[in-house]
Amino acid sequence: MFNLEAYLKERASLVEGALEKLLPKGGKLAESMRYTTLGGGKRLRAILLLASAEYSGWTDLDSILPAAAALECIQAYSLIHDDLPCMDDDELRRGKPTNHLVFGEAIALLAGDGLLTFAFELFSKLKLPAGNVLAAVRDLAEAIGPSGMVEGQALDLEWTGKRLTLEQLEQLHLRKTAALLCASLRCGAHLAGAQEADITALATYGQKFGLAFQIVDDLLDEVGDPEKLGKATGSDARLGKVTYPVLLGAEKARKLAARAIEEAKAALEPERGTALFGIADYVLSRQS
Amino acid sequence: MFNLEAYLKERASLVEGALEKLLPKGGKLAESMRYTTLGGGKRLRAILLLASAEYSGWTDLDSILPAAAALECIQAYSLIHDDLPCMDDDELRRGKPTNHLVFGEAIALLAGDGLLTFAFELFSKLKLPAGNVLAAVRDLAEAIGPSGMVEGQALDLEWTGKRLTLEQLEQLHLRKTAALLCASLRCGAHLAGAQEADITALATYGQKFGLAFQIVDDLLDEVGDPEKLGKATGSDARLGKVTYPVLLGAEKARKLAARAIEEAKAALEPERGTALFGIADYVLSRQS
Repeated sequence: MFNLEAYLKERASLVEGALEKLLPKGGKLAESMRYTTLGGGKRLRAILLLASAEYSGWTDLDSILPAAAALECIQAYSLIHDDLPCMDDDELRRGKPTNHLVFGEAIALLAGDGLLTFAFELFSKLKLPAGNVLAAVRDLAEAIGPSGMVEGQALDLEWTGKRLTLEQLEQLHLRKTAALLCASLRCGAHLAGAQEADITALATYGQKFGLAFQIVDDLLDEVGDPEKLGKATGSDARLGKVTYPVLLGAEKARKLAARAIEEAKAALEPERGTALFGIADYVLSRQS
Repeated sequence: MFNLEAYLKERASLVEGALEKLLPKGGKLAESMRYTTLGGGKRLRAILLLASAEYSGWTDLDSILPAAAALECIQAYSLIHDDLPCMDDDELRRGKPTNHLVFGEAIALLAGDGLLTFAFELFSKLKLPAGNVLAAVRDLAEAIGPSGMVEGQALDLEWTGKRLTLEQLEQLHLRKTAALLCASLRCGAHLAGAQEADITALATYGQKFGLAFQIVDDLLDEVGDPEKLGKATGSDARLGKVTYPVLLGAEKARKLAARAIEEAKAALEPERGTALFGIADYVLSRQS
């Protein structure tokens, strides 16, 4: 019997251990990089990469663990830059003061730059067939670059305070959140040398999963518990951001998330998908 | 007879054309990325990559041009982030207002992030043997990441206003400037599938070249013509930064640069090194 809670905990601790070992040590820059990356987070992107590789038949987790850790470096970079005064100007993240409040804006900026670059370094040093690694790097760079996550952030700035259609909101979140989640699955599949059909299925799962994740995120920002979340709630409303619950109402938004999760699961073969099915259900019910 | 001026001009225009074609178009983020990357700069890093590949026997420049363009994206990213108010707070770059003055801090931050990521995307899409590309990505990421360029920037912040030894200054500039210049040469060699001996020779050239480049940069900041440079001079002194001329005096600094250029050239085989020899001499005499 698959125990999701134990699985998530074990995997998160595996990723945490890898990050602890891999991240640079010594000096203010390294300290700042470690501050935001270590000791927190659900490690969802890393866990998805590992689960995707396993879905594709890969069993040697150690060999792909640095890639999983790299995704968490990217997540940390995006959080640090997103929290900066010129962006969302947030003060609390994962229950701690944000990076720039502790290390100053300049070092926080550089820590983000360093983490983003370090992620590519980790990928480039994987001991796996170069073609597989390069395919993963390609998907990752596309997902988080100027046509992916970074463009999502730019649209977010541009559209804040404006009235959006549901279509625009989806465009925004496909880039801002879903792109990296989706890339986590595609990277895992590429590293495992998966067949094209599996890559496509896992990417579909990733996109639907990403949509559901964002809707739940919006709901939690509106009605969640700041204690459990480790960050202030209500910041979307404060910043005048359009969200799914704002646009649809909480009830309809919840239903949209539930449907996306069903579609995510439908893309996979159930017998191989136990872990990914579990993670999908978990995202719907998460409180933080 | 090798005409250096014509060579540099032709190569810079080749790189400019590639950047124009490759960089994303449409929207504020793309506009901001293009603003700093296009229409200026000596394209030294790109030219070094191409020349290094040619030194290693590569003749098909078109196939590696996106990698050369990628280095200029990285250079532009580092300039945009370096000019931000929380860093050097500069107002003029390549004769134009700095990125954040035109697009605002938030978009400038994202444009830098986008350019850095896009550079890796360009590398990952090269139509070359995956092993060669991955070796280049590895060297590049190491050179510009938390043990390279980003660490150089962090040390620069930490050490500004402090009395440094010549050794510390060298440590700083090896990371801050020489690392990317050196990686430009290593990347060209890797993409060309060069022998280890050639890679080592080109890397030595790159390191010595980088040192000389930085010393000349320091001298120009002290005594250069702001018109020709397209940026304010005297900013090192204003920011309390230790430089080679500050530490050694202008005359000794100039000699150190000249020696480094001789050592750079000595690493190469003269019959193959015409272009790289020329570029080395050019760096010593440059006025901008």
